Amino acid sequence: MIEKLCIIGVGLIGGSLARALKEKGYCKQIVGSSRSADHLQKAVDLGVIDSYSTDMQEAVKGADVIIVCVPLGAMEMVFSKIKDVITPDTIITDVGSSKQSVVDAAERAFGEIPASLIPGHPIAGTEKSGVEASFAELYQRRKVILTPLENNNPEQVEKIENMWLQTGAEVRHMSVQHHDEVLAATSHLPHVLAFGIVDTLAKMDSQQEIFEYAAGGFRDFTRIASSDPVMWRDICVNNRDALLKVMRNYIEDMELLYSLIEQSDGEALSELFEGAKGIRDKFNDMLQG
Amino acid sequence: MIEKLCIIGVGLIGGSLARALKEKGYCKQIVGSSRSADHLQKAVDLGVIDSYSTDMQEAVKGADVIIVCVPLGAMEMVFSKIKDVITPDTIITDVGSSKQSVVDAAERAFGEIPASLIPGHPIAGTEKSGVEASFAELYQRRKVILTPLENNNPEQVEKIENMWLQTGAEVRHMSVQHHDEVLAATSHLPHVLAFGIVDTLAKMDSQQEIFEYAAGGFRDFTRIASSDPVMWRDICVNNRDALLKVMRNYIEDMELLYSLIEQSDGEALSELFEGAKGIRDKFNDMLQG
Repeated sequence: MIEKLCIIGVGLIGGSLARALKEKGYCKQIVGSSRSADHLQKAVDLGVIDSYSTDMQEAVKGADVIIVCVPLGAMEMVFSKIKDVITPDTIITDVGSSKQSVVDAAERAFGEIPASLIPGHPIAGTEKSGVEASFAELYQRRKVILTPLENNNPEQVEKIENMWLQTGAEVRHMSVQHHDEVLAATSHLPHVLAFGIVDTLAKMDSQQEIFEYAAGGFRDFTRIASSDPVMWRDICVNNRDALLKVMRNYIEDMELLYSLIEQSDGEALSELFEGAKGIRDKFNDMLQG
Repeated sequence: MIEKLCIIGVGLIGGSLARALKEKGYCKQIVGSSRSADHLQKAVDLGVIDSYSTDMQEAVKGADVIIVCVPLGAMEMVFSKIKDVITPDTIITDVGSSKQSVVDAAERAFGEIPASLIPGHPIAGTEKSGVEASFAELYQRRKVILTPLENNNPEQVEKIENMWLQTGAEVRHMSVQHHDEVLAATSHLPHVLAFGIVDTLAKMDSQQEIFEYAAGGFRDFTRIASSDPVMWRDICVNNRDALLKVMRNYIEDMELLYSLIEQSDGEALSELFEGAKGIRDKFNDMLQG
């Protein structure tokens, strides 16, 4: 049970968590905070949170769990604001898409990595954003990755794990570094590539016509290029090292494909395509889930 | 009206055309041909074609329209087989994904580009293949590109255009070269990239785990990596020049993105992402259609 949960940033992610926990009766009180009183009032009207304060220090006071659901670029500012009003018993967790950068932001803000910081990342989301788009079932059968730190208290880690389990999510633990590598490969790289291909085609002479002849494969392939540019800028900058590593591997693979096509090496091409198809098909059921 | 239509290769594409034309009563007779009597008998049983012969010369005899629906790599073989049994009045058309290579294959087989060759390419398909997957509505509101050649007879071009209009498709004309450029950008490049990213991730140490954490964006992004490897090998080799050109542009764009991320140039990154999102959103309705 959580006595007082404070959600900083009440959008799709924070709002859906609040709705799920309310359904389970897992929190006595859920308080929201952000810059916009209008957005927070809407969250109250929708029954997502119980109350709010745009004064972050006011909002977190007495909370046993604070969950920070702001863009990666705003994490340090939030940590700096709350650091003087929290106690060692206050658990701080987050939902950021890269974890090392969150730990670094906390270290800069607190002067050390707080023992009560338990970084987390739910692998869930939709095309939409904002509290209006939130729903209690968002995390059902989704994975939530926690990246506990060495100095964390195991009981506090368990409390955050139990919180996520209430939402129907599967909770996994991994190291900060491993999280950042896995997410760079499975999420950050595809987004960069999707933005990249749309940019490439947009630079072509017959841009308008090109999109006109694009079929279903292209539509699916570029859907994620409609994602929020600012969020993805933040992710690229905050998970830079892991992303650059996998981008370099990918560019080298593209150069390999380029030379196989240049040499009309049909045998090597079909071998590579077959291998990729085999893996994609093998994981199809997993990806459907 | 078509007196006798001969479809060489009765799968999803040829079968769906046959079904649509039968519904409209646009052909007096539809004859199929391919290597497999079993497949052809199934097409007869399904009511897709009226009759068949595995002897291609026998099948095309007396046809006013022959449509070649075989993989790009088999086009020259088909042209060589039929060249001695057709007359100048026999229209030859096809459904290949690249057009210059089809013209080249015809030139090699016939010793010159036949005046009755009217290259075509319906921009339609599903994940499935085979005549069992064919359906009359496949081409409704889809685009069919014809790339008429200089020495074509306009009446014969009109006849092929009318055939496709029966299926509910929109017919567009463009040059062979322009078709190959547009398709390289909108279809061939995305497929190569999708095979490429799955290959890149498969080479990583924690392959299994990586796919486990992949979410919806990744699923859509790599769906086309489940496509037929042999067909895509053929397309890469047959549309080599146009594909290499757009691949080079894309790799250069990836290198640009790499250095922007390396330099943590948030401003340039969000500008590029915003531009791509704007274009993708603008064409969203078009791509939904």
